[in-house]
Amino acid sequence: MKTLLEAIRPTTFIEAQKLRDHLGIDLTIASETFQHTGSFKFRAAYNLALNVPNDEILTASSGNFGQALAYACKLLGKKCTVVMPETSAKVKIDAVLSYGATVDLVDTKVIGRNERVAQLAESMPNAYFASAYDDKYVVEGNSTLGEELAEKDFDVVIVPVGGGGLISGIISGTKCVGCCTDVIGAEPLLGNDAARSLRAGKIITNKTEPETIADGARTISLGNLNWPIIKECVSGIIEVSEENIKQAVRLYFELANLKSEPTGALSLGAILEHSSVFPGKKVCVVVSGGNVDADVYRNIIENQD
Amino acid sequence: MKTLLEAIRPTTFIEAQKLRDHLGIDLTIASETFQHTGSFKFRAAYNLALNVPNDEILTASSGNFGQALAYACKLLGKKCTVVMPETSAKVKIDAVLSYGATVDLVDTKVIGRNERVAQLAESMPNAYFASAYDDKYVVEGNSTLGEELAEKDFDVVIVPVGGGGLISGIISGTKCVGCCTDVIGAEPLLGNDAARSLRAGKIITNKTEPETIADGARTISLGNLNWPIIKECVSGIIEVSEENIKQAVRLYFELANLKSEPTGALSLGAILEHSSVFPGKKVCVVVSGGNVDADVYRNIIENQD
Repeated sequence: MKTLLEAIRPTTFIEAQKLRDHLGIDLTIASETFQHTGSFKFRAAYNLALNVPNDEILTASSGNFGQALAYACKLLGKKCTVVMPETSAKVKIDAVLSYGATVDLVDTKVIGRNERVAQLAESMPNAYFASAYDDKYVVEGNSTLGEELAEKDFDVVIVPVGGGGLISGIISGTKCVGCCTDVIGAEPLLGNDAARSLRAGKIITNKTEPETIADGARTISLGNLNWPIIKECVSGIIEVSEENIKQAVRLYFELANLKSEPTGALSLGAILEHSSVFPGKKVCVVVSGGNVDADVYRNIIENQD
Repeated sequence: MKTLLEAIRPTTFIEAQKLRDHLGIDLTIASETFQHTGSFKFRAAYNLALNVPNDEILTASSGNFGQALAYACKLLGKKCTVVMPETSAKVKIDAVLSYGATVDLVDTKVIGRNERVAQLAESMPNAYFASAYDDKYVVEGNSTLGEELAEKDFDVVIVPVGGGGLISGIISGTKCVGCCTDVIGAEPLLGNDAARSLRAGKIITNKTEPETIADGARTISLGNLNWPIIKECVSGIIEVSEENIKQAVRLYFELANLKSEPTGALSLGAILEHSSVFPGKKVCVVVSGGNVDADVYRNIIENQD
């Protein structure tokens, strides 16, 4: 059984000259697109599956956490159940199934995801319910990326924000090795609960799932465990327009040969929002994942001229 | 002034579990898509520009070598002229220009590329004419990738073949450190001069530039310097159909989050041609580059179901 550090792949650092020249910024990409299951979520999922005593783990996820947990459980010989809306893309359902997990499809018009999870939890008394972002094992798993980033002495690290599991992990990881890099969050303007929370000094929730193209950031609010870490240590949250999310995906394609999912491109999108702030600094953008449907991707990279 | 090993980026090794499971092969990707200028050609170009005494370098290239040489010359403070057909994609012309090189556009209906190069060479008596593949500095530069591969103890390495500069470099690099990895070439069936040459025991040329989607392999023949290395040491050349080239690009997109250009996907295409040969072996596929126009890429990744 591999330890967390043995199981994960180190992040892939990419210095793309064309992108640097285009932006006029000393930019490094930290790409988690080649992490196991294609996103940083594997760090969290493996750490969780490794450390909880339960042999069964239950989660609700239509995206990267479901795949990551399914694969982590496969590696660790644990049973995994993933609750997914029945409207989920077939490719995502198939990915979870391919790792040997059970998929519980929910008609969300009939029963909410959380209600279904509660039902299942009752019928699986020995299962651990894993939040995709609000769990100490998740933050701890993601802190491994913070430790990798801390070794590079960046002035600024920009990180996509949904539920806040990644950014609080990165903050924990960088701070715990005494690094003083500024950590900035990047979230969709359409789902700007983290920015509003920071302004209000308390957790503010979105009324409904934000309809952003950044599907990994369609969260209702920051996690309760993540909020104090973010509140205390984050240097700011930048709200990114849908157009700049898509433009960032295009720039990665054209100038860095990098396939990013929209959520992963939030951090570069944040630079596009405030391009005058970053020149002169050594900046790192974290690309959280690369899993995007071909049709969505084709649409985004279509020439806009 | 950086040495060759200081200037190049090490290749990016990727072990994509979904792709491995799909193929049932112990597969590692060696991706040169994040090399400077987006392809392995930078290794060759930098080595050449570093070692020739001339301050001016002339080449003919509509593709990756032109960009790579332009950037290498920029880094080394040398003058660079790239002859390109005037029908070249604007994005490729702009890329060469952006590295500060002079672009000489040729109407190939009026004058052949080689004739134009001869004209220019006459007017630039101090210039070194650089072949994109048939030059000892090119082979020597590419051998650095062979040395990186040799450290990994693969049973088989599969390499895209056009003019043969990459595969002869990789063979030189692996052999010179005493490695006994099998090296297999992968070329488009539509431009299968290397396979035919191997069968004939002498260099066979294509009558015209092959009309394959793998634009980096639209070469007339293997280079004279490369041929003896290939003839003596290659374990085989696999001819890849256009459909399998495209399928390989799609598989990289879907199962490895990797943006590959068609030429770069030849090596995976070779596995698709002979999928029963490789299980049980530790196989490495070299992805030679990632520079592909958005329109071409969109077309390829369009869902084929």
